[in-house]
Amino acid sequence: MIFQNNFTVRTTGRGMTDITGRIEEIVQQSVLRTGLCHVFIQHTSASLVLCENADPAVRGDLETFMGRLVKDGDPIFRHDTEGRDDMSAHIRSILTDSSLNLPISNGSLALGTWQGVYLYEHRTSPHDRHILVTVFGK
Amino acid sequence: MIFQNNFTVRTTGRGMTDITGRIEEIVQQSVLRTGLCHVFIQHTSASLVLCENADPAVRGDLETFMGRLVKDGDPIFRHDTEGRDDMSAHIRSILTDSSLNLPISNGSLALGTWQGVYLYEHRTSPHDRHILVTVFGK
Amino acid sequence: MIFQNNFTVRTTGRGMTDITGRIEEIVQQSVLRTGLCHVFIQHTSASLVLCENADPAVRGDLETFMGRLVKDGDPIFRHDTEGRDDMSAHIRSILTDSSLNLPISNGSLALGTWQGVYLYEHRTSPHDRHILVTVFGK
Repeated sequence: MIFQNNFTVRTTGRGMTDITGRIEEIVQQSVLRTGLCHVFIQHTSASLVLCENADPAVRGDLETFMGRLVKDGDPIFRHDTEGRDDMSAHIRSILTDSSLNLPISNGSLALGTWQGVYLYEHRTSPHDRHILVTVFGK
Repeated sequence: MIFQNNFTVRTTGRGMTDITGRIEEIVQQSVLRTGLCHVFIQHTSASLVLCENADPAVRGDLETFMGRLVKDGDPIFRHDTEGRDDMSAHIRSILTDSSLNLPISNGSLALGTWQGVYLYEHRTSPHDRHILVTVFGK
Repeated sequence: MIFQNNFTVRTTGRGMTDITGRIEEIVQQSVLRTGLCHVFIQHTSASLVLCENADPAVRGDLETFMGRLVKDGDPIFRHDTEGRDDMSAHIRSILTDSSLNLPISNGSLALGTWQGVYLYEHRTSPHDRHILVTVFGK
C-alpha cells in the first residue's frame, strides 16, 4: 500500500516549525501498521531536521551555530539575487535535509522519545513551503 | 512494484553534474505513477545533492564554501593515501548525501521548480561513479 | 514484502561502531532479493554515517574534524543540561544522518567496496542506542 498527501506551511521567517503532528495525522489517514513515511520539502532554501523536542534552547543554539557557520552576505558568495540570506539559505539546506524517512510501527511514527520533526526555514522573510508526504507499508 | 537500474557517470574532477534527466528516464522506464525513487552512490568520496538548478553561481558558491570549510591537505588529517584531496573528499561526502529519496507523483519526479539532482565529485581528478536507482510504488 | 527488526548497541563513548554486519544479518533474515533497507536511530545525540571502511585513520580524521567544527562547551550554547558535550552532540547528529537507506540487490546490501555503515556516538560517555531497521522489496 502506498499513499500520498501534502500540506503547506506558512513560515514566519528564519527558524523551526514543529510538523510532527501534521505528519502523524497523515500516517493515521493511511491506516498502515508497519512501514515508512517519507517527508519531502519541494524547496532549496528551507529544509527538514529531526531535532531534540524538549528544550527550545536546542533549536536556538542550532540556529546560532548555523548562522555562524554559514554567514549571510559572506563576501565569497556571488549568488545574491534575493538578498544576503539567499545563498546562505541554499547551503544551510544542503547541510541539513530535504527529505526524511521515518519508520512506522504499530500504526504510528516510531520516533525516539526526544525526536521531533521540524521544518527549518532559512530565509529571513515568511514563505509558503510545500511538503509532500509518501507513506507505504502494510 | 519495485524496479532497479544503474548508470555510471564519468566525472571531470571536482564539481557538480546534473543527473536529474538520467533519473527521470529510469522513473519513466518503471511506468510507476505514485511512489519513491531512491538514488544511491556507491562511493565515499563523491556524493549527491539536491540544489538550486537555475543559476550556476549557486553551485560555484557551494563549492567555494565547501573548499573553505573542509580544507584539502589540512594538517589535522592523517589519512592522505590518495593525496591532499582524499580525506577532505570523505568529509564533504558525509556532510552532504550518499543517497536521496525523491517522490514520484503522476508518473514523474515530484521535485520543486528549482530543485535539481546533482552528483557532486569531491576528488580533483576524473572518476567513474556508479549510481544505483531503486524505484518502487504503484 | 516489508519486515522490521531492531537491535541495541552499547557504545563506549564518542566514536564510530561498524554495524554493517548487524544490518546485513537482518537483510538475510528478510530473504528479500531486491529492495531497500532503512536504518533509523531513535536518538538525537548519536547518528549514522556511511564511511570509508578500510583505513581507521579516516574515522579518526572525521572525529578530529567534527570536534573542531562543533566545539564542546562552545560559549554560544545555552543548552548544557547534560554537560559540555550535550549541544555539540545534537548539532553533530544533524550534520550527519539519523537514517540511511541502503539498496538491496541479489539478496544482499549493494554497498560500494569501501562503504561501511557506522553508528556515530557523539556523547563522551557510553549509551544504549536503539536502531530500527525496515526492509522492503521482493
